[in-house]
Amino acid sequence: MGKVAVVLSGCGVYDGAEIHESVLTLLRLSERGISYQCLAPNIDQMHVVNHLSGEVAAGESRNVLVEAARIARGEVLDLKDASVDDYDALFVPGGFGAAKNLCDFAVKGADMTVQPDFLRFAVGMHKAGKPIGLMCIAPAMSARIFGEGVNCTIGTDADTAAAIEAMGGKHIGCPVEEAVIDRERKLVTTPAYMLAGNVAEAASGINRLVDEVLAMC
Amino acid sequence: MGKVAVVLSGCGVYDGAEIHESVLTLLRLSERGISYQCLAPNIDQMHVVNHLSGEVAAGESRNVLVEAARIARGEVLDLKDASVDDYDALFVPGGFGAAKNLCDFAVKGADMTVQPDFLRFAVGMHKAGKPIGLMCIAPAMSARIFGEGVNCTIGTDADTAAAIEAMGGKHIGCPVEEAVIDRERKLVTTPAYMLAGNVAEAASGINRLVDEVLAMC
Repeated sequence: MGKVAVVLSGCGVYDGAEIHESVLTLLRLSERGISYQCLAPNIDQMHVVNHLSGEVAAGESRNVLVEAARIARGEVLDLKDASVDDYDALFVPGGFGAAKNLCDFAVKGADMTVQPDFLRFAVGMHKAGKPIGLMCIAPAMSARIFGEGVNCTIGTDADTAAAIEAMGGKHIGCPVEEAVIDRERKLVTTPAYMLAGNVAEAASGINRLVDEVLAMC
Repeated sequence: MGKVAVVLSGCGVYDGAEIHESVLTLLRLSERGISYQCLAPNIDQMHVVNHLSGEVAAGESRNVLVEAARIARGEVLDLKDASVDDYDALFVPGGFGAAKNLCDFAVKGADMTVQPDFLRFAVGMHKAGKPIGLMCIAPAMSARIFGEGVNCTIGTDADTAAAIEAMGGKHIGCPVEEAVIDRERKLVTTPAYMLAGNVAEAASGINRLVDEVLAMC
C-alpha cells in the first residue's frame, strides 16, 4: 500500500471542507497506518462565511489551497499538479466547500459543473480503477465523475437526492453509521454531517467509509 | 455529569487552535457521551499566518471567536460571558493560538501575561475545584493559572520547559501517549503535537487526558 489522496475544499463547514470530517478521515488513515497527502485546488473560495454569524463576509476573499493548509498543518499540494499514478485511493470530506469550491452544486444544483482540476484528478483515479470515498455533500458530484447509474448516498435529504437522480445518479437512503458501496465503480459514500448529530456519529460512518475504500485498494 | 468547556484560540496551528487536537478533544468527549460547549475570547488574533507559506499575512486580521466558530460548526460562545458554574471541567487544545491569543508566551516567554477573559475563567474553574486539561503548548500557562509548584508537561522541549520552571512551574518530561497529572490541583497535561508525529499519536495522549480529567469530575 502506497499513499492515498485527501482532497480538501477549504477550512470550515460553511465555505470550505468540514473540519471534523476532514480530521476524522486523517485520523482513521493514521490509525490504519496509511500514508496520505492532502490536496486542494489553488483557487479563490466561492466566498467567505463568518461561521459565528452565518453571514457572508462581504469583501473578504480566501484561497482554497491556503485555507486547506490549516487542516493539513501546512502539508498540502496544489491539486493541479497531482498525478493519479502517485495515489492508491481518493477521499473527499464534505462541508459546503465540496459544493461551492470543488463544484457549483450549491448554486446550480443539477446543472452544476465540477472544478476542472478536481474533475481531472477524480475521473483519472476512477479510470485507473482506484477506489474513491466521498462524504457528506461530496457525493452530489458522483454522476459527473462516474457517469449515469452510479450508486451513492447523501443520507436522506429529498431535494439533494432528487438532484442526484436528475444528473443520472442512483441515490440510496443511508443512516449515518453506514456507507453505500458501488463495487463495480469502486465508490463508497456516507452521509457524515448530512445526518450526524455529533462528532462520534460522524466518525462511525467515516471510519466505515475509510475501511471499505482501503479494502478495495 | 453536566457540561464541559472547551476553549479554542482560533482555527489553525500557526495562529490559532491546533485543528486536529481540537477535533480529537471533541471526538473523545462525544464518544464518552459528554456534552461540551466551545468558548473563545472575542479578540483579534495576534496575527494571521498563511499556513501554506508559513509567512505572516501582512495586513490581514481575523477574530479569534469568529475563527473558532469554524471548528465549533458555529456553536461557540464569547469566553467573557462564560460562568464557571455552568461547567464541570475545562479543556484547552494547543496550537500557537494558545501561546499567541490566550497569552503572549510566544512573544514574551516567561514574562508572559494571560489574556484576561481566559485567566478569569481558568482561575475560576481551578478555585471552584474543577479539573482542567491543557494540551500541547497550553501548559505553558500552568504557573500563571495554578501558581508555583504546579506539575505539568509540554513534552520534552528544553527551552519551553525552562520557561515553565522560570515561572514557578515544575516541568515533567512526558511521551506523546501519556499525560502528567497533578492530582492536588486537578490539572492534566499532555504533549500532543509538541511531540506527535501523526494524528493517531496525538489522539493517544489526548484520549488519555480527556479520560483522566473526566475521572476527576
